[in-house]
Amino acid sequence: MTHVSIIGTGTMGQAIAGLATKGGHTVELLGSSDHDRPVTGDVVVLAVLYPAVAQVLETRGAQLAGRVVVDVTNPLDFTTFDSLVTPADSSATATIAAALPQSRVVKAFNTNFAGTLTAGAVGGEPATVLIAGDDADAKALLAGIVATGGLRAVDAGNLTRARELEALGFLQITLAARDKISWTGGFAVVA
Amino acid sequence: MTHVSIIGTGTMGQAIAGLATKGGHTVELLGSSDHDRPVTGDVVVLAVLYPAVAQVLETRGAQLAGRVVVDVTNPLDFTTFDSLVTPADSSATATIAAALPQSRVVKAFNTNFAGTLTAGAVGGEPATVLIAGDDADAKALLAGIVATGGLRAVDAGNLTRARELEALGFLQITLAARDKISWTGGFAVVA
Repeated sequence: MTHVSIIGTGTMGQAIAGLATKGGHTVELLGSSDHDRPVTGDVVVLAVLYPAVAQVLETRGAQLAGRVVVDVTNPLDFTTFDSLVTPADSSATATIAAALPQSRVVKAFNTNFAGTLTAGAVGGEPATVLIAGDDADAKALLAGIVATGGLRAVDAGNLTRARELEALGFLQITLAARDKISWTGGFAVVA
Repeated sequence: MTHVSIIGTGTMGQAIAGLATKGGHTVELLGSSDHDRPVTGDVVVLAVLYPAVAQVLETRGAQLAGRVVVDVTNPLDFTTFDSLVTPADSSATATIAAALPQSRVVKAFNTNFAGTLTAGAVGGEPATVLIAGDDADAKALLAGIVATGGLRAVDAGNLTRARELEALGFLQITLAARDKISWTGGFAVVA
């Protein structure tokens, strides 16, 4: 059993909370009015939109030392839906990892629409959580939470692969925004 | 009916030839020994590995004027399998389009493993061809070939989205190379 803190009470935060709870893990869900409550989880999920991450790091950065931090963001330019706001050769996760040298930062869940996490499926395929990061133990810990929650976890590689995961998440969002796929569909990972 | 030239006789070239033929289109398949045969297709598929594209452009660039050119490449650094050889803020397709100002260049098929094109499916989902490009008519022409061949075509956006399609293709190849998925699986697009 792992103790999980989720920062952000939107659809992604709730979906990941549901997944972890289903797997028998303890979950604390922290919203924007919970500034006074320090995070206590071994795993901390940053389930806020990318523009809000900087403030979380500023107010809670010290609390995140020694913990596994999970970045779920898709750093889109939401005014244009036509590019990412991160440097072309980097990723949101790399930026977050650089700001949290005492945490083990992994990318996950950004390629999953919230509805597919709750349903456990993308169309007829089981929902799969792609995880990228440089710390094998951190990835395995998160993969265990995903698996006990009934979903499939796949190690997508090292932290540099977060760039490709963010490209995938970006593409998936633009396809849904343009009605080419639904918000309950998207990219399924077929083994 | 569209007349299609396919440059490259490997598994991708053969799979795309099969798809187009199945759809009732005429296909000429040109290999490396066919230097003397000019391309005659309204649609020309560059079904060679990315390092071989430059030579095709050099020898056949003038022949490609006025035609729809389809770039299927994944410009991996095949020595490391850990990065692309294209600039981080660009794509193979953008490079090819810049070299062929008199052609209408689209990205397609790079997110489809050859086996899934032949099978028509990725797991239990229909195989879907993602197409990116700036010319709507060129994309529609290719989408028609894909659809008559029995597969689903999805307009993935303008030519700048080729960058995300190449990230997806790159990620998919690394997952297969690391045995996380099979070469007959990968990313299915669920509507």
